[in-house]
Amino acid sequence: MSPAISPLRTIYRTPPYLLPESEARVVEILRKSGPYSRTEIADITGYSRAKITSVVNHLIELQVVEETGEGDSHGGRRPRILNFNAGFGVVAGVDMGATSLDGALANFKGQIIERRSVSIDVRDGPDSVLNCVCALVAEMLRNQEIAAEQLCAVGIGVPGPVEFSTGLLIAPPIMPGWEAYPIRNFIRGVFPSAIVIVDNDVNVMVLGELRAGAGIREENFFFVKVGTGIGCGIVVGGKVYRGSTGCAGDIGHICVDRNGVVCHCGNIGCLEAMAAGPAIAQRAVAAALAGGSPILEKILKANNGTLTAKDVGAAGAAGERAANEIIRESGRMIGEVLASLVNFFNPSLILIGGGVSNIGHQFLASIRRNVLHRSLPLSTRHLRIDYSMIGADAGITGAVYLALDHVFAMKRERAG
Amino acid sequence: MSPAISPLRTIYRTPPYLLPESEARVVEILRKSGPYSRTEIADITGYSRAKITSVVNHLIELQVVEETGEGDSHGGRRPRILNFNAGFGVVAGVDMGATSLDGALANFKGQIIERRSVSIDVRDGPDSVLNCVCALVAEMLRNQEIAAEQLCAVGIGVPGPVEFSTGLLIAPPIMPGWEAYPIRNFIRGVFPSAIVIVDNDVNVMVLGELRAGAGIREENFFFVKVGTGIGCGIVVGGKVYRGSTGCAGDIGHICVDRNGVVCHCGNIGCLEAMAAGPAIAQRAVAAALAGGSPILEKILKANNGTLTAKDVGAAGAAGERAANEIIRESGRMIGEVLASLVNFFNPSLILIGGGVSNIGHQFLASIRRNVLHRSLPLSTRHLRIDYSMIGADAGITGAVYLALDHVFAMKRERAG
Repeated sequence: MSPAISPLRTIYRTPPYLLPESEARVVEILRKSGPYSRTEIADITGYSRAKITSVVNHLIELQVVEETGEGDSHGGRRPRILNFNAGFGVVAGVDMGATSLDGALANFKGQIIERRSVSIDVRDGPDSVLNCVCALVAEMLRNQEIAAEQLCAVGIGVPGPVEFSTGLLIAPPIMPGWEAYPIRNFIRGVFPSAIVIVDNDVNVMVLGELRAGAGIREENFFFVKVGTGIGCGIVVGGKVYRGSTGCAGDIGHICVDRNGVVCHCGNIGCLEAMAAGPAIAQRAVAAALAGGSPILEKILKANNGTLTAKDVGAAGAAGERAANEIIRESGRMIGEVLASLVNFFNPSLILIGGGVSNIGHQFLASIRRNVLHRSLPLSTRHLRIDYSMIGADAGITGAVYLALDHVFAMKRERAG
Repeated sequence: MSPAISPLRTIYRTPPYLLPESEARVVEILRKSGPYSRTEIADITGYSRAKITSVVNHLIELQVVEETGEGDSHGGRRPRILNFNAGFGVVAGVDMGATSLDGALANFKGQIIERRSVSIDVRDGPDSVLNCVCALVAEMLRNQEIAAEQLCAVGIGVPGPVEFSTGLLIAPPIMPGWEAYPIRNFIRGVFPSAIVIVDNDVNVMVLGELRAGAGIREENFFFVKVGTGIGCGIVVGGKVYRGSTGCAGDIGHICVDRNGVVCHCGNIGCLEAMAAGPAIAQRAVAAALAGGSPILEKILKANNGTLTAKDVGAAGAAGERAANEIIRESGRMIGEVLASLVNFFNPSLILIGGGVSNIGHQFLASIRRNVLHRSLPLSTRHLRIDYSMIGADAGITGAVYLALDHVFAMKRERAG
């Protein structure tokens, strides 16, 4: 950690730290796809050599950017590479689940310096859970001997629909008491030097994939989380897309069977009610009770009459036909919905994540088969469908980048 | 038409005419949402007063922008309003259908000065049809006594999938002989002073709505064309979205009935095969032959055994139940697909256009009902679903703006 404090941080008590247009642009380029040499930055921006020199020199002076000698040498002297100054400050990323809280502290390059998890219950309400969030962050800061004033930003993913502009939850189905609760103010009350950004968990995950996962070079893709529910994070033109009222990607309530089961939303045959974790578990219990699956029957007895999607995966891996049939059926329904979305949206990549994605390869194979079967050849020619590689870390990684993305902003000339 | 020629047009023989970053930005703002006063432009860009003055003065000198006194007065002198110089040059917009060609000549404000239509058959192949396109444009220029060198750009919408970066058609189902045909080169051979931009017809229509229709103030919306086929143009963040390989919006082949009819694409129960014009006509013939609709039966006899979607609309308007049932059924299927897309994409507006949209209000009502029934409340709270108001003109309007959008571009400092 650099002991000096950037002049920016003495001017602005809290982010966003404002930079002139060309400096803000260079910072954004370095943040989103750096590190780069000066020549590469000039190629991307189209700025003249003189302008690049002045912009970069000022950013180095502000300690936002640093120069390293890490570039590959091509015979001559090693080109000097520009990157974020890791020591500018720290940010925290928090991934809030229904029953767990994962937190990380990262430097300004997005590298995680420390991480922790605690069990929570979102149904305990915002005061209790947000106290846990702050305690978790404070503990990590203490452990790293970092002063609280060094914390510039906190990014949080929450399991419910968020109005992004205000950071407020709107009618969250599994978070009673959280509706319109001022999460930002609560956390800023504890960490007054930090800007706080709140987003829906799947949006945060797709951001993690965009910046540090399989989506790094993709313009248009989506991340499908299959767990207790089913949701989708969308990237359009290299940016997270939230829709007109912030609820884009709510694919769990697309109808897959007009004669299906009733969903908690009140409609019939929603994808979530038919193909997510609980539906898989329920079908597995039925198969076990019907005597169709000795392995599932054995697990069912050992687990006091309950089964999880993970159990079905284990039975499937052991070659049990009934289990694999359940996995394939869930994959078929998800694949059919994704096929429609592929025809509409023409993405280059679909990533599958969330708890149920650990169920085995049959699941992915079934999704792939159904997407390819029902989409137009032109849409699938260059389409990849894969499990998320960063998997369970997508949320926490995305939360760190959500925080970093809001530390700098463009200064409008008229205001300056 | 201003007799003077802009210095830009003497530097660059053909568009894009390159402008420095800040000038290009002001031009784009004026083009997309102008006219504006200097103060308004300063508000939008954040540029200082001095910078606005220098940028605007230079654009006026280049004859790209002109100053008028049209602004509303608020007690003081009338503010001077800046807009595109209508007389900078002309552009042509062409909307190519399977059997018709609509062309328009427009000034630089996008105002149509002349328009013409001719009958064609796209199956005659590119040479024959593109000769018609060029003859149509040449005739309009002659009629307006405008020299061919004044034509800066031609925008064309074609009824098939287009790779936008190259302007080439890719496996167009109803355009034999057009695959990868160099449309741009053909037209530039006749009009060497013009840049030629080719796009899919529905993308062009949604652009027309974005610039001069119901989409003017919308960020995220789509335009659904229901005719012989069903396609969808998408706007994300105020820009036409084409997807990763240019085929976004191909919703006609989303499955609506696993036990439905076989589509020309080879799959079963595609929306297009089940709900577009031909399916409506086919159901109407069956209803007429079964004696369920005296009016349709009468039209069927008068028309030598054929019916169109328009006939079904007429019978429905006359109160015939069987006809209205057919209209509602088509609306239901389209509405169900749109409901899924609303959950995924969360648009603020869906516009319905194309030939079948003239079938009557029952059709729109049925689409609306089914979208509202199957989408989440949060997604539909601010959602409007309407017939296109510019209707048949969406294509030609969009083609004009497609041309205008490509006349100016940003000059990169390094190249300048």
